[in-house]
Formats: sequence, structure tokens, C-alpha cells
Amino acid sequence: MKVQVVQAILSDNDAVAVENRAALDGAGVVGVNIMASPGAGKTSLILATAARLPKDVGLGVIEGDLASSIDAETIAASGIPVVQINTGGGCHLDAPMIRTALPRLPLVELRLLMVENVGNLVCPANFRLGTHVNVVVASAPEGHDKPYKYPGMFAAADAVLLNKAELRPVFDFDMESFSAGVRMVNPAAPIILVSCRTGEGLDTWIDWLLARRP
Amino acid sequence: MKVQVVQAILSDNDAVAVENRAALDGAGVVGVNIMASPGAGKTSLILATAARLPKDVGLGVIEGDLASSIDAETIAASGIPVVQINTGGGCHLDAPMIRTALPRLPLVELRLLMVENVGNLVCPANFRLGTHVNVVVASAPEGHDKPYKYPGMFAAADAVLLNKAELRPVFDFDMESFSAGVRMVNPAAPIILVSCRTGEGLDTWIDWLLARRP
Repeated sequence: MKVQVVQAILSDNDAVAVENRAALDGAGVVGVNIMASPGAGKTSLILATAARLPKDVGLGVIEGDLASSIDAETIAASGIPVVQINTGGGCHLDAPMIRTALPRLPLVELRLLMVENVGNLVCPANFRLGTHVNVVVASAPEGHDKPYKYPGMFAAADAVLLNKAELRPVFDFDMESFSAGVRMVNPAAPIILVSCRTGEGLDTWIDWLLARRP
Repeated sequence: MKVQVVQAILSDNDAVAVENRAALDGAGVVGVNIMASPGAGKTSLILATAARLPKDVGLGVIEGDLASSIDAETIAASGIPVVQINTGGGCHLDAPMIRTALPRLPLVELRLLMVENVGNLVCPANFRLGTHVNVVVASAPEGHDKPYKYPGMFAAADAVLLNKAELRPVFDFDMESFSAGVRMVNPAAPIILVSCRTGEGLDTWIDWLLARRP
């Protein structure tokens, strides 16, 4: 009797994500997928990180936006290699978009690739890019209930940053409730309070980041 | 020779949106689709509006979230008829979801139905619900560049509210740049500065809201 073999077929997106991961691994680059609501501070985090990285850690950036190149211009002004992806209305980055961007970056000179996804707490969590880690950036003005309302995003995180952390009192932000919400769906990801404005917590974040390996 | 007739076929969603609109019109209810980033203050706006509406204006609410019923519980605690829709991970409300919710509200007693969409500046703009107007709630902490990055959402707005407006100085919010960005894609929608915390601008917002007709 013939044995039926069921083979898991990778989706088109995931197959390209595997290629992207191989390209990053081959160049020794750690890929970081940064996801957040609009305006949580993804670009500010990238700039603040770049300013504090050891000089020998090459950083490249991919900027994802529906439209405009505002963020890429800001990043490029800091002398960082950057590629802007415009999704043309699409609500998330996907692996084929990253595949298009990778050859435009000097990968062999990099150790870190920060990918700023489209500002959206839902859709980006469902599309693998080939990056090594997912970082979710929440922010105090958004309120402490976000993990309860967007559990999929927080479940997908390897690290959760809470940006604009110094403004918690202004927004009656309940840290205990926020942390409990993250833990409901994600038992392990570190929760790091940061402020890209004051510099609070950025050393802890960068230590975590530099401990990632391709 | 036979004349070819090409008929515009409504999408399934739009066909249901037309039914929803008819149900609202039949009951004399103005439907308001409220869209925003996560944490911009949609629920706070609904509560602040409810507290200031003339007593004879019946208000009902539909709450859209991926998960949880936090917002609906908050609304219900104010004595407002409310239905919670959980999208189960979906990134936006759609017309069939609204069709399911409408019979659970006392439509004939209402004049206004506020529909709080999923927190997302992208996807909700692409799905008609059958409501009469779209309101986009931006907020000062998100930054003034949002209209440039999420043009589809701002193009779809019949009114743009800027919530947490009193915090513009804290976030170096450039009002001129924000307004210019809205005007790039939307020549007519009023831009109303509000603060659900201080009450600033809410009278202007409510005047606009009460001038809508089914």
C-alpha cells in the first residue's frame, strides 16, 4: 500500500521570507522587524538607537510606509543606509518587498538591519519578512489596554518596548495592567520602558539588541 | 446587433452596506463610522460626546475590536445601548458585521449611532459599513505627519478631529503641517481640535455632528 506523504507547502510569502533570512544570515546581519501603531515612535527609536550603537556595529534601515519618504529622508540625513518601500496603500510589509530592498543595501558592511513596518497593530504580525526578531513598540499615550485589544501583535513580539514612558503619569498609564496584558499572550518577551526623548531605557534596549545573533 | 450592457455589480460588502444604510434611514438614525489609530481616543470621544448630547438625542454604539469587550463595558456603564463586535483578529469592521449588530440595538429610539472601528489607520477606510459619515480621530502624540503617511484614511474623512490637542506643545506638533497634509488629500473636511480630557472643542464637534442628517 502506498504511503500518503503530506508535505507542508510554504506560502509564497513564507518561501520568500526563508530566502531573505538566508541572505541576512549569509552576510551576518541580524534583521529586526519593528511594528507599532502609527506615531508610537518607530523612526525615533531607530534614530536614537543609531546614535548609541557602538561605532563598529553597521546599521541599515528599511522604511515601510503606504506613501511618502519622510522617514527615509530623516534616516538618510543621519548618514544611515536606508531603502524606502511604499506599499501603495498596503497595510503591512511582506517578504517580497524586503527581497526587493535587500540588494540596495550594503549588507556585508552591516550587522543590524532595522525594518520599520507600516504603522499598524494588526496586519504586520501576520506576515513573516525573514527577519530574526519582532519588536513591538507601544507608547504611553496609546493607553495600557492595547495588549488586550491587539493580542496577536503582542503575542508575536520577541521584545516589547514602551516608548514615551516618561509620560505615563500624564496619560494615567497603568503599568501593571499593561504588563499583565502582555503576559496573557506572551510569557517571555522582555518589556523595556524607553523614552527616545529623554534616553531612558535605551541602554537596556541596545544591550538586548546587541545580544541577538543571526 | 446585440448591445453589450455592463452592469456595475456591488461587492458583497457594499451590497450589505446599502441594506444597513436603508435600515438606519428607515429609523431616522445617523450612522457615524469612527476611525483612528489604536489609542487615539475613540472611546473617550464617544463617552465625552454622550455626556454633552442634548437629552432628546438618543445615542447607540457599536464597538469593534479584535478581542475583548473592555470598551463596550465602559460604554454600557454609562447607560448607553452598545453592541460589541469582536473581529477575531480581523483588522477592520465590515458591513456584514454591522448587519448582525443592528437588530440588537433599539434603533427607533436612537438618532445617532456611533460605530467605533478597529484601531487602524489603513484597512477600515476601504470597507463601507452603511454609515452616513466617516470621522477620523488623529491625536497630537501621534505626530503631525500622519496625513502624509496614511493619505487614504484622511481622504475618506468627512471630518478630522485632532484629539489630545492640548498636548501639541509636548509633542512639537506642527498644526500647519498637519492641516496642509489633510488638505493635500481632502479639500473640504473640517479639522476640529478637541480634547476629551479638557473638553476643548467638543461643542464645535457636537454642533457638526448634530447637523448631519440621515
